[in-house]
Amino acid sequence: MTIVITAFELSPDGGMGLARDTRVRWALEEVGRPYEVRLVSLQAKNEPAHLRLHPFGLIPTYEEGDLALFETGAIIFHIAEHHAGLFPDDANARARAITWMFAALNTVEPPILDLVTARFAEGDKPWAEERLPLVKDRIRDRLVQLSARLGDADWLDGAFSAGDLMMVSVLLRLRPSGLLDEFPKLAAYVARGEARPAYERAFAAQWAINAGNPQAG
Amino acid sequence: MTIVITAFELSPDGGMGLARDTRVRWALEEVGRPYEVRLVSLQAKNEPAHLRLHPFGLIPTYEEGDLALFETGAIIFHIAEHHAGLFPDDANARARAITWMFAALNTVEPPILDLVTARFAEGDKPWAEERLPLVKDRIRDRLVQLSARLGDADWLDGAFSAGDLMMVSVLLRLRPSGLLDEFPKLAAYVARGEARPAYERAFAAQWAINAGNPQAG
Repeated sequence: MTIVITAFELSPDGGMGLARDTRVRWALEEVGRPYEVRLVSLQAKNEPAHLRLHPFGLIPTYEEGDLALFETGAIIFHIAEHHAGLFPDDANARARAITWMFAALNTVEPPILDLVTARFAEGDKPWAEERLPLVKDRIRDRLVQLSARLGDADWLDGAFSAGDLMMVSVLLRLRPSGLLDEFPKLAAYVARGEARPAYERAFAAQWAINAGNPQAG
Repeated sequence: MTIVITAFELSPDGGMGLARDTRVRWALEEVGRPYEVRLVSLQAKNEPAHLRLHPFGLIPTYEEGDLALFETGAIIFHIAEHHAGLFPDDANARARAITWMFAALNTVEPPILDLVTARFAEGDKPWAEERLPLVKDRIRDRLVQLSARLGDADWLDGAFSAGDLMMVSVLLRLRPSGLLDEFPKLAAYVARGEARPAYERAFAAQWAINAGNPQAG
């Protein structure tokens, strides 16, 4: 069955690969599954047709036959569950890979999203400059812990898994801030993720759509 | 095999049931699985013994034989996968239940966590009062969408699932703010969750530990 995902017609990041369709593209590339993309305009995202697919008016969504999913974590879980390559065979190792997916999305990403909010939604507020160090320190707290756990390993728990795919994707959001470079082990971890051929193909595919969008930067 | 979870010795919420061990207790009660609790002090949470179990120094953790997990979402997923009662049998419905788990944790909870940060970590900052309405409006944006999707249904997608358990748990964090009461359908949804005997048992179990902690409120 054909897999169809959605992506924004104009990603606000101008092709940096930070829109979440990149995460799903990467997962599909890792498992070698072709897919089609339907682009959604910033206007259409809050219209009934898209809201039926994604109640929060976001991307990506995932359609395959009569299955329709939203939420990147759930989509990547579904891909990993149905194709070899993103979950280990051992049951306990698989449970730990799922743990890292949730850790990326619920423990590491929220303070990072707060930085995005601070810079973009509140960048013009009178408190913006004074508040920024607090926001960054909350991210640093998590990165210290994550770096300590990763140590000198290549990936978070043995072989590369959907947990690494998600964690690398979450950390990539930090690159523009310079925060990632404060943690050399994590920066190298992210670079290992980006060097995977599947990531390179996913990045190129979104770049072909988004490169040079006026909001880049 | 015995299941052992961790919880804070003194939950900062004084027994309101908002610490995340309540979510895991609730899941275990729904599937009828007994468990033991090991209490972790606020000092011990960042010591090596606990960090080996939970790299971010949080609770809950989950141990069962030689399996050790952290991250509430992953723990509840594991419980739902291995016991009847939290995932539907139909494969597509199961994938949608997993979608709601991720939506609760990655789309609905982050702006709610931001409110917790605004009130507690930044409550004494000069911008606290002026910034609060922005934080609340970001939550309202999500609740409008969630309420529209829920409509007049009892649960998010057919029968009660782990997706509802997680969404109700996330929304419960809003009760002290009064925001939940602005959305009667969501308030009724949360009340339906709280009325489940399994939730009541989970709440009572954490209450027995936390009631009357000095930081309550």
